[in-house]
Amino acid sequence: MVIVLKQKPDENKVEELMKRLRGMGLDIHQSRGQNSTILGLVGDTSAVDIDALSALEIVETVKRIQEPYKNANRKFHPADTVIEVGSVKLGGGNFAVIAGPCSVESHEQLCAVAADVKAAGAAMLRGGAFKPRTSPYAFQGLRGEGIKLLLEAKKETGLPIVTEIMDLSQLYLFDEVDVIQVGARNMQNFEMLKELGRLHKPILLKRGLSSTLQELLMSAEYIMAGGNQQVILCERGIRTFETATRNTLDLSAIPALRAMTHLPIIVDPSHATGHASMVKPMAVAAAAAGADGLMIEVHNDPANALCDGQQSLTPGQFADTMQAVQAVLPFACR
Amino acid sequence: MVIVLKQKPDENKVEELMKRLRGMGLDIHQSRGQNSTILGLVGDTSAVDIDALSALEIVETVKRIQEPYKNANRKFHPADTVIEVGSVKLGGGNFAVIAGPCSVESHEQLCAVAADVKAAGAAMLRGGAFKPRTSPYAFQGLRGEGIKLLLEAKKETGLPIVTEIMDLSQLYLFDEVDVIQVGARNMQNFEMLKELGRLHKPILLKRGLSSTLQELLMSAEYIMAGGNQQVILCERGIRTFETATRNTLDLSAIPALRAMTHLPIIVDPSHATGHASMVKPMAVAAAAAGADGLMIEVHNDPANALCDGQQSLTPGQFADTMQAVQAVLPFACR
Amino acid sequence: MVIVLKQKPDENKVEELMKRLRGMGLDIHQSRGQNSTILGLVGDTSAVDIDALSALEIVETVKRIQEPYKNANRKFHPADTVIEVGSVKLGGGNFAVIAGPCSVESHEQLCAVAADVKAAGAAMLRGGAFKPRTSPYAFQGLRGEGIKLLLEAKKETGLPIVTEIMDLSQLYLFDEVDVIQVGARNMQNFEMLKELGRLHKPILLKRGLSSTLQELLMSAEYIMAGGNQQVILCERGIRTFETATRNTLDLSAIPALRAMTHLPIIVDPSHATGHASMVKPMAVAAAAAGADGLMIEVHNDPANALCDGQQSLTPGQFADTMQAVQAVLPFACR
Amino acid sequence: MVIVLKQKPDENKVEELMKRLRGMGLDIHQSRGQNSTILGLVGDTSAVDIDALSALEIVETVKRIQEPYKNANRKFHPADTVIEVGSVKLGGGNFAVIAGPCSVESHEQLCAVAADVKAAGAAMLRGGAFKPRTSPYAFQGLRGEGIKLLLEAKKETGLPIVTEIMDLSQLYLFDEVDVIQVGARNMQNFEMLKELGRLHKPILLKRGLSSTLQELLMSAEYIMAGGNQQVILCERGIRTFETATRNTLDLSAIPALRAMTHLPIIVDPSHATGHASMVKPMAVAAAAAGADGLMIEVHNDPANALCDGQQSLTPGQFADTMQAVQAVLPFACR
Repeated sequence: MVIVLKQKPDENKVEELMKRLRGMGLDIHQSRGQNSTILGLVGDTSAVDIDALSALEIVETVKRIQEPYKNANRKFHPADTVIEVGSVKLGGGNFAVIAGPCSVESHEQLCAVAADVKAAGAAMLRGGAFKPRTSPYAFQGLRGEGIKLLLEAKKETGLPIVTEIMDLSQLYLFDEVDVIQVGARNMQNFEMLKELGRLHKPILLKRGLSSTLQELLMSAEYIMAGGNQQVILCERGIRTFETATRNTLDLSAIPALRAMTHLPIIVDPSHATGHASMVKPMAVAAAAAGADGLMIEVHNDPANALCDGQQSLTPGQFADTMQAVQAVLPFACR
Repeated sequence: MVIVLKQKPDENKVEELMKRLRGMGLDIHQSRGQNSTILGLVGDTSAVDIDALSALEIVETVKRIQEPYKNANRKFHPADTVIEVGSVKLGGGNFAVIAGPCSVESHEQLCAVAADVKAAGAAMLRGGAFKPRTSPYAFQGLRGEGIKLLLEAKKETGLPIVTEIMDLSQLYLFDEVDVIQVGARNMQNFEMLKELGRLHKPILLKRGLSSTLQELLMSAEYIMAGGNQQVILCERGIRTFETATRNTLDLSAIPALRAMTHLPIIVDPSHATGHASMVKPMAVAAAAAGADGLMIEVHNDPANALCDGQQSLTPGQFADTMQAVQAVLPFACR
Repeated sequence: MVIVLKQKPDENKVEELMKRLRGMGLDIHQSRGQNSTILGLVGDTSAVDIDALSALEIVETVKRIQEPYKNANRKFHPADTVIEVGSVKLGGGNFAVIAGPCSVESHEQLCAVAADVKAAGAAMLRGGAFKPRTSPYAFQGLRGEGIKLLLEAKKETGLPIVTEIMDLSQLYLFDEVDVIQVGARNMQNFEMLKELGRLHKPILLKRGLSSTLQELLMSAEYIMAGGNQQVILCERGIRTFETATRNTLDLSAIPALRAMTHLPIIVDPSHATGHASMVKPMAVAAAAAGADGLMIEVHNDPANALCDGQQSLTPGQFADTMQAVQAVLPFACR
Repeated sequence: MVIVLKQKPDENKVEELMKRLRGMGLDIHQSRGQNSTILGLVGDTSAVDIDALSALEIVETVKRIQEPYKNANRKFHPADTVIEVGSVKLGGGNFAVIAGPCSVESHEQLCAVAADVKAAGAAMLRGGAFKPRTSPYAFQGLRGEGIKLLLEAKKETGLPIVTEIMDLSQLYLFDEVDVIQVGARNMQNFEMLKELGRLHKPILLKRGLSSTLQELLMSAEYIMAGGNQQVILCERGIRTFETATRNTLDLSAIPALRAMTHLPIIVDPSHATGHASMVKPMAVAAAAAGADGLMIEVHNDPANALCDGQQSLTPGQFADTMQAVQAVLPFACR
């Protein structure tokens, strides 16, 4: 951490600050120039409160040098984390695709889609039981009943299931769910993250619409600090000024996160683009860029889907996308 | 709602679509040009799923004309909503300031600050018991104990209290809290919004970091659809590329929301700017632009605050800010 | 174009408006509902001023349905445009890579890099003679001398050259330049675009830092309206809140633009990411997603480059990147 | 400037780097911790190229501590700059309003509006002769003829005139123009800024749509480095995801810039909001927040304006706005 002091600071206050910092076990190196004085702090600064320091009269700015995340930090855990879900592996060179409908609608719909995506090479089944919708007047999901249908589809197809939790009060329903998804809008629902950190189950953590990669890792850190090291990161598009796509897919997050963390990184091109016609090129691009997996929405009848029809692939389009993805995988940048 | 069809659409599919729309009770007006066909839908379109329509092969785009919010819509409720909290009124020409520390730290701290802000003209006391922090290693608030201290401060000063809920499991602690705050990160925590919609208590709803004004109103709509019409909207800065301020305060949200909704609108210049030195000018600007109130962080010792010290005013700075705000209030744009 | 009228509009003013619109040769279809009246305009609306219409007292909003660009519009020119530069083809299935240093520094530097990138498979040489730098104290380019060095390198290697123009007063120096680049900061320098529209030479138009894809096409339209149909579009990252990368590369621009326009689309992963280590994965991803080409910065000694050293590949890294790109090209999404 | 080295750097390379930095006249202070080594550079670092340093194998990140602007920096010029245009003063406590039509349309229109805004208290007349328009098919301004009409209006009313230059080739027409405006799209047209730096005439520099405040000051620095110290900064809204307003007006730029620079700061609420109904509240808010002036679009017949009708005030609305602004001025935060 580096503290830049204001011009001509009160020397007594500088002395006081340095005493306070040394009291936290930190070493201090001073650099005094004509227009600025810099204090370099050496040691474990993760407990230092930048806001409090910045509030001091003599301080101009405080800059963090060390990453504020530890468990998720590749510096301290150089080897890739591999997540195992039944016989499926994700990360560390293992590529896996999660596919299924935006929302679970019925036994027939779900099992039909599940059979189709399995045949096309998907490793896990997704489907929303609890649906976060911008409008209170839109379909909110089958909820508990949706979880039941997912478990039936799991039984029928053998595919592990991934589904989203929206509130901790629903957690008791997720016992047999293989991977619990935390949606973009809940990426900083810290109470939920803490609770999920006590489970022994993979958590699929989606990046928030306006979250930096460092904030995504801090949210992963919440889960990992509780003891649960099984976190899958998911890039799903960020909010920008562009309106030609639903969100702006940030594929450079793949190499950026790869350097920052050992956790596996997957990409959701369906929510990112919001248009079925863009899913295949972005899926292939993500695979080529080195993603550890994909999450893709597939529906047997998109025009009558209860949500997100515009971005859902038909089973045929999904099979075509899988072929294209598998073709580039041997040449992916890892 | 307007549906733009693709060039030379399959006439059978157009017929089918029109039958489907008429089945929903809508009237349809067709405009056929050389390069485009437009279907204008007249009637209640709030239940129409734009995504599903957009997924149709023959559809190019769908544009919503009517606002998707009803309870919050000024068109249907022209008169300003006035929120009453004890003897305090907010909205409809009643201006009120909510002030207090970022987080509740102790009885002494809270009561000292409460007495100071009351003396300076604050109408309500804020203080965080449950604190959403980016880092799991940062101070997380006094939690239940913090609520107790707030209630003590309320008793001592008579100020109604405003404090944030982070998860529904905490709700039982909020019985005597006067106004429940939903933080920016929870603006789209829809399960929480639904539950708060069942209460008979004002909800202070903060705009999400990357939420449009329409999304803010849709979240208010979640609360109002449940029966609770007492929603206070709070602009607290949005996330942009600019780094000179913590967020970018969007004061044009005041006249924009004023036209869209009858709900009261307050502004939080502390979180928006992140710098104590910018709080006063932005507080005065917000008042001049016609805000119904302000929410300001005040701490007796910002340099030792357990959170957000950099943006907290001292009691003296707060009193100075209140004077400046009151000076412009008679000339505010309403 | 669709005009939504306010509730209960003055009928005389509606009549007046309809007369004015019919006077512009437009057909009007009215849709009258209980809460809104919609006017659908059919015909050529490209000359209609949305701002003026929106200023009318009776108008609530105006929504454009037709794209405001014609020459660049795929609807009117379904076949891909192929740009020919000497023997090099770009677009319509022809993939080409433009590579070279950020700025031209010396004959030796440029010719060495040119030979290296040619050997690795680059089709054109890039190099900045006029350099747009945020700081007036930073190296501003060799200017006229830089153009001379580029022409020497072209003679030595046979590679066509691409270089940026910063002001029309420099245009006389660009006679023998093969492709003129318009930088991101000049994407809406409309006077320059008009003048370049009078040339018979390909223009490489970079997307502005905060420009929508539609605005990019409107800038291409400025060039094309003047008669010059040879425009290459370049996605180079947009500005967002994320700081882990210099900009946010928007690869979904490839399929989005592909549908909107017939012009070729290339990607610049160097400026987009700002980090040499991210160039290869993003180059490969862009190729996989169906880009028509790439623009990559290569320097023989990045640590001593006069600009953009951090994002420049060494010749060895570039050769490695080219191999990876060529491996995925056969499987690219087109 | 602070250089953070990678873990366990090659000591020879560290030595080499330190020699290179000392060769630039810089002092170096080392802070060595277990996981990181920090080099603090003391001295004039404005010529140090961050990109080149960042490209070094041993370097993790480089952080600038000193501001990269000098002439515009309040640290080196504590007193406010006051711009004088004829008898009008702007800055240092002098508040001035610039008003007039978006584009100059005719002698009658311009002189009528000029007389009206003068009567209402405007100090200068604005009017566009050269118009930057997104579409090549939109009205592009009266150009040279427009400048003539502005000079006639200046003669008739005595108001100094402010108008925009779009290309250096137009400069010869600006001899009698009092203040030359650089539009948002040209904020980083560095060749133009350099040339304007050679004039002895105030330059009104508008913030780019996606420009940080530091970048705005670096553009001012381009002008000032050439010798022209008369720069007026103009906040006119930045581009964000919000669509309820044309741009997002960043009023916190006023206190932020006030601390960074001694240059005067004005606000353009017309372009920022894009809606006439929001101009008054934002004008009043800007004045209350301490702006040195305003720039407001006024048209005698907005519904028939050749551009920007939607955001133009009528003369009556402008007079009303001026009254409201003058009422809060005595209480403005300065």
